[in-house]
Amino acid sequence: MGGARYRPPPRAGTFPARYTTGVSVLAKPILISIDAMGGDHGPSVMIPGAALALEGLAGREVRFLLHGDSAAIGAELAKAPAVAAVSEVRHTDTKIASDEKPSQALRRGKGTSLWNAVEAVKLKTADAAVSGGNTGALMAISKLQLRMAEGFDRPAIVASWPTARGITAVLDVGANIECDAAQLVEFAIMGEAFFRAVHGGAGSRPSVGLLNIGSEEQKGHDELREANQTLHEVDLEMDYRGFVEGNDIAKGTVDVVVTDGFTGNVALKTGEGLARFFAHELRAALTGSPMGKLGALLASGALKRLRARLEPPGGGPFLGLNGIVVKSHGGADARGVADAIKIAANLAASDYARDAARNMERLGAAMRAVKTISEASQ
Amino acid sequence: MGGARYRPPPRAGTFPARYTTGVSVLAKPILISIDAMGGDHGPSVMIPGAALALEGLAGREVRFLLHGDSAAIGAELAKAPAVAAVSEVRHTDTKIASDEKPSQALRRGKGTSLWNAVEAVKLKTADAAVSGGNTGALMAISKLQLRMAEGFDRPAIVASWPTARGITAVLDVGANIECDAAQLVEFAIMGEAFFRAVHGGAGSRPSVGLLNIGSEEQKGHDELREANQTLHEVDLEMDYRGFVEGNDIAKGTVDVVVTDGFTGNVALKTGEGLARFFAHELRAALTGSPMGKLGALLASGALKRLRARLEPPGGGPFLGLNGIVVKSHGGADARGVADAIKIAANLAASDYARDAARNMERLGAAMRAVKTISEASQ
Repeated sequence: MGGARYRPPPRAGTFPARYTTGVSVLAKPILISIDAMGGDHGPSVMIPGAALALEGLAGREVRFLLHGDSAAIGAELAKAPAVAAVSEVRHTDTKIASDEKPSQALRRGKGTSLWNAVEAVKLKTADAAVSGGNTGALMAISKLQLRMAEGFDRPAIVASWPTARGITAVLDVGANIECDAAQLVEFAIMGEAFFRAVHGGAGSRPSVGLLNIGSEEQKGHDELREANQTLHEVDLEMDYRGFVEGNDIAKGTVDVVVTDGFTGNVALKTGEGLARFFAHELRAALTGSPMGKLGALLASGALKRLRARLEPPGGGPFLGLNGIVVKSHGGADARGVADAIKIAANLAASDYARDAARNMERLGAAMRAVKTISEASQ
Repeated sequence: MGGARYRPPPRAGTFPARYTTGVSVLAKPILISIDAMGGDHGPSVMIPGAALALEGLAGREVRFLLHGDSAAIGAELAKAPAVAAVSEVRHTDTKIASDEKPSQALRRGKGTSLWNAVEAVKLKTADAAVSGGNTGALMAISKLQLRMAEGFDRPAIVASWPTARGITAVLDVGANIECDAAQLVEFAIMGEAFFRAVHGGAGSRPSVGLLNIGSEEQKGHDELREANQTLHEVDLEMDYRGFVEGNDIAKGTVDVVVTDGFTGNVALKTGEGLARFFAHELRAALTGSPMGKLGALLASGALKRLRARLEPPGGGPFLGLNGIVVKSHGGADARGVADAIKIAANLAASDYARDAARNMERLGAAMRAVKTISEASQ
C-alpha cells in the first residue's frame, strides 16, 4: 500500500477508541472507504459529496477512510470540517486512469487509491467502499480482492430508477453481457435483498419481475423462460410477479426488474439519454417565448423539485461479492456522490448479505432435491 | 374476400377514371389500404386519422381503400367528407382480435379486414397498407402474403424517435428476438433506405450506428462485432459510424440505430414508459402549487408544443417485405393514425425499395467475392 500516511482528524481523540472498542452493535459507526481520486473531478467532488452524505445520514454515526493524494484531499477537507472530523486519510501517489482496461488495472492497480479503497473492505477495516473510478477496473479489482459470496456465480451492477411509484431497482446494468437462467435467478435474489436493505426497509416484501418483450408466441429467449419457471416454482421468500416489459420500469410495476447486463445497460443509458433530452426540451420550451419565460419563473420552485425528482440516484452497487462496493457515476456531482455513499451506508447497516444468502440456500436445497428426484427416477 | 361491397364516395365520379387512366407518373395518386377495424377504437379513430393525414399530405393526391364493416365505416365517413371523397369501402364482417395469436390469425384470418388490407398491396390495388391490429398477426399475415424482398432474410419493425437533432430511426423493435450478424447488416441497409425515404429526403446520406454497450474489453456479443466489421469493410453506399450506446438514441448521434428485436423492443418501451412518467411528473409539479399553476397557465402554449414534440410518431413500418405495411399503435389516437398513414404515403412515393435493393446487391457481390477468394486459396 506504499507510503500510507495518517492524517489525524481535528476531533480524532474519541474516534479510534470508539471505533475499535465497539460498545454495542447499534452504536458501532459505519466506516466507508472512499477512493477520493476516482471520477472525473477527484477530491473536489468526492469530499463535498461526503459532506452532503453526512447531512443525509444524520443520526447515524459514519466515518470515512479517504484514499488518495493527501495534499489534494487535505485542501478539500479544510473546506469541509464536518467531513474532516470523521475522516482518516490514507495517502497514495497512484491512481487508476479513467480509460484503463480492466486487465491492465489488475496488473498495475496495486497501491492505487481505487485498489486501497476496496482492500480496506477485504481487510475489514471498512464496511463498504465507494469509487467513481472506471467501472471495468473497479469490477475486476473488486472481484479479485473480495471474491464472490458463497453460492453466487457472477456479480451484478444494480441501478435505482426514479419511477411513478418511487424507486425501481434494475439489475444487471452492465457487468455481464450474456446471462444464463441460473444467473438471472441469482440476480433476482440479490436484487430483492438489495431493495429491502436500501429502499424498502427491514421486513418489506419487494416485488420482482423478469424483463421480457410482449411478443405473444415466442415470448423471450430460452434462458428467460427457464429463469421464470425456476422463480415461480422454487419456494423462495420472494414476491415474484413473472414477466414485465420495458414500460414497466418507469411505471414502477415491480420494485426489482431483473435482466441481463447487455439489455439492462441499453435500457439504463437509453433512459439517461431521454431524461437529458426531456430536461433540455423543457428548458427550450420555457425560454422560447416571453409568456413561457414568465410562466417558468413563476413555476421555478415546482420545476426545480421536478428536476430533483427525475434525477437518478448516483450510486450503482456491485452485488454478489463478499463485501460492499458502490460505483458512483464518473461524472457525478456532489449530490451523486452523496447518493452513492448513502447507498453504501444503508447496505452496510442492513441484513442484505444474510438475506441474500438465505434465499440462495433455499434455491440450492431445491436444486439438490430436483437432482435427487431425477437421479432416483432413472 | 366474402361480400365485398362498393360504397360510392360522394364525389366518386372522377375517382376511378383518374385512378385507372394514370395520366403521368407524377399525377398518379398514392393508394393506401386501411384496416379500418384494427386498433383499440376501430373506424372511430382510423377515419379521423385519415382526415388528419389528408391535411398533412396536402399537395399530394392520396386515396384510401377502407376495409371493414361498411355501416360502421359509413357512419364515420359521414362526419369526414374529405375522406369520403377519396375513399372506397371494401366491406367485410370479420376481423382479427387484438389478442389473437399469429398462428391462429394465419389459419382463420382470410377475409378479415386486416387480411384484406394487406392483400390489396399484394394484388397491387394499393401502394401500402396501414393497420392498428395486433403486431404478431399483422406480421405473420404480411410475411405470408407479401413474402420477403429479394435477398432479405427477415423483416424488421422500425420506430422513429423524436431526438435532440430531429428523428432517429431504431430497428428492429420487436420482430426478431435473436439476430445474427447477417440480419443486423440487412437491418442497417433497410433502415438507411427507410430514413432517406421518410425523414431525410431523396439524395440525403443518413448516418448509421450499431447499438452496443460501453464495456471496454468485451465489447458486445460476437454477432455485433461481426456485423460491425462487415459494415465497415463492405463498400456499401452508407455513412456507417460504428458502435453507439443507449444514450445516443435521444442525443440523435446517428440517424439510424440498428439492434436486435429484443433489445430494440426493451429500449423503445422503456422510452415510452419514461416519456409518460415525465409528462405525468411535469403535470404534477405544475399543478401542485398556486404559483406552479399560474406559471403553467402562462406557459401553456410552450408546454403544449413540448408535448407534441416529445410524442413519438405513431407508425412503425415493417421493412424487408415485397410491399409496404405500416403498423399504427393499437391505442393510437387520430394523430398517431395520421402519422402511420403519412409514413406509408411517403414510403410509397419514395425510391425506398430500389434503394435498399441496390445496397443488398453490393453486399451480395462482396460476399460472393469473399467466398471466391477463400475457395481459391484452399
